[in-house]
Amino acid sequence: MNLLNQFKFYSIVFLLTIVSNSTQAQITNNITHEQALKVVFEAKKKAEASNVLVNIAVVDAGANLKAFIRMDESFLGSIDVAIKKAKTARYFNIATGDLGKLTQPGGIIYNIEVSNNGLITFPGGVPIKNNEGKIIGAIGISGGTIEQDHEIAIIGAEAILE
Amino acid sequence: MNLLNQFKFYSIVFLLTIVSNSTQAQITNNITHEQALKVVFEAKKKAEASNVLVNIAVVDAGANLKAFIRMDESFLGSIDVAIKKAKTARYFNIATGDLGKLTQPGGIIYNIEVSNNGLITFPGGVPIKNNEGKIIGAIGISGGTIEQDHEIAIIGAEAILE
Amino acid sequence: MNLLNQFKFYSIVFLLTIVSNSTQAQITNNITHEQALKVVFEAKKKAEASNVLVNIAVVDAGANLKAFIRMDESFLGSIDVAIKKAKTARYFNIATGDLGKLTQPGGIIYNIEVSNNGLITFPGGVPIKNNEGKIIGAIGISGGTIEQDHEIAIIGAEAILE
Amino acid sequence: MNLLNQFKFYSIVFLLTIVSNSTQAQITNNITHEQALKVVFEAKKKAEASNVLVNIAVVDAGANLKAFIRMDESFLGSIDVAIKKAKTARYFNIATGDLGKLTQPGGIIYNIEVSNNGLITFPGGVPIKNNEGKIIGAIGISGGTIEQDHEIAIIGAEAILE
Repeated sequence: MNLLNQFKFYSIVFLLTIVSNSTQAQITNNITHEQALKVVFEAKKKAEASNVLVNIAVVDAGANLKAFIRMDESFLGSIDVAIKKAKTARYFNIATGDLGKLTQPGGIIYNIEVSNNGLITFPGGVPIKNNEGKIIGAIGISGGTIEQDHEIAIIGAEAILE
Repeated sequence: MNLLNQFKFYSIVFLLTIVSNSTQAQITNNITHEQALKVVFEAKKKAEASNVLVNIAVVDAGANLKAFIRMDESFLGSIDVAIKKAKTARYFNIATGDLGKLTQPGGIIYNIEVSNNGLITFPGGVPIKNNEGKIIGAIGISGGTIEQDHEIAIIGAEAILE
Repeated sequence: MNLLNQFKFYSIVFLLTIVSNSTQAQITNNITHEQALKVVFEAKKKAEASNVLVNIAVVDAGANLKAFIRMDESFLGSIDVAIKKAKTARYFNIATGDLGKLTQPGGIIYNIEVSNNGLITFPGGVPIKNNEGKIIGAIGISGGTIEQDHEIAIIGAEAILE
Repeated sequence: MNLLNQFKFYSIVFLLTIVSNSTQAQITNNITHEQALKVVFEAKKKAEASNVLVNIAVVDAGANLKAFIRMDESFLGSIDVAIKKAKTARYFNIATGDLGKLTQPGGIIYNIEVSNNGLITFPGGVPIKNNEGKIIGAIGISGGTIEQDHEIAIIGAEAILE
């Protein structure tokens, strides 16, 4: 391969890398439905392994519902709680349980729960980040203990990392 | 057949009857999450084949959200429309388009859309029936033309039939 | 000065006083949109100087939204919180943080937050007063710490004073 | 310039173009607050020139409120109408007046207005597109005639084009 051809070859490789990166950046600003399904299924698998019945909600970067599944015999009241946990986690880019530490009586943001059409501030909602650490959505789990819900949410959120 | 063998035989028949009945009751009264996922995926496959971007919602026999998926780049406003179509179809056990014929000005149930926190009465929502014809839930599709939405809903609803 | 002239003189003074007061009253009873924009921009300038991303809401004397701006990358959940802080400050003519001292468990207006479609009672909302000290609206800030939000709100509210 | 150098030069130009485009795409996927303010001010200028009092709302790509201004003496009821027009335009990527043609009695999506917490389907809301034609938000105008509202919305939406 002479110098010109070599240069062309590396140029093309370099170009493809840039194009593919920019495409990826484009894609990864917001969770895709394929990623959302991956999150849901990993969370569901963990819930089944833990023998707990939950509702699983995923919202996108705009806090809009992207995917949802309710396991058989799980609480009816958990549909809304799971969705609100996911939305809360994205509204403030924080695990809902961490937010809840600040909303208690005497806390710095006491009773913020009445805003945004109802927030849920106990554990079970966590932001979903991509490989670059950028928040692209959130997951909310409801149906088990708060410890179980949080653990399942974490497993779900990490399902899209490579 | 001696008495012991006879007893064994009837015991087994009796056991099988109980098991099969309880299984059947389980299956046929309410849509399961595995069935709901089957409905969602068949609907999604049809939407992709038709090159249309939709939101897909499935509610159970109690008209509560069971499964949901929003395809990338589909309308944001279709999240709520798809869920409301599914709920409407189960609230009145009817295809939403058929209900809409009765809600027009001068119609016998004019403006019923304002009830139940908002009904959608144009095509795209249909009840989901099991093999025995019993309604066990409903599906709502939003994002395409009303003809496309209805067609995709039918494909989804029939996914659980054997 | 004879009696008639004296009378004329006082009449004119009296008339001018009435005219000037009524004109002034007209102007100062309610925040104008030009004033609201001034409030928003001073608050934004302060937020940028403090390197904090906030939502800024201004309501008028009737507690109705007058102006709003959301800085890029600020919390989605802060849209509603900022608007509710502004409304709360005008509903009760008080800084939201001061109201919050009374709404804690055991407080004299415990859980008033559930009224008025949701109040926010932690710092970040303050009434806007004109030069005469009359309340003509309110500002709400959300996105930073409660100290930052309150400080930015004060800067904004004082932007219309001369 | 020999062939190799020439090739290098064009390669670099080409690379820079790709990088700059991808960066721009990144930036322009969602309306910025500076763009939103530009939209608001152009709309306000047009309203003043037309001697009409309006409410102006801008939402981002996620249909969340980004900027708002209410002109003095404009209708109080127009606050919510303007915001709902902007949201509706983004929910379905369409001018609200065009949507309204389909929601009339006998229309294919009759009474869709009850969804999404209330849609407004008469003129005054239009999507905001960037230079590449991609929808990055929407504007809603309320206070004048529907013709005036629509015209002002168009002027506002086009303010960010170069």
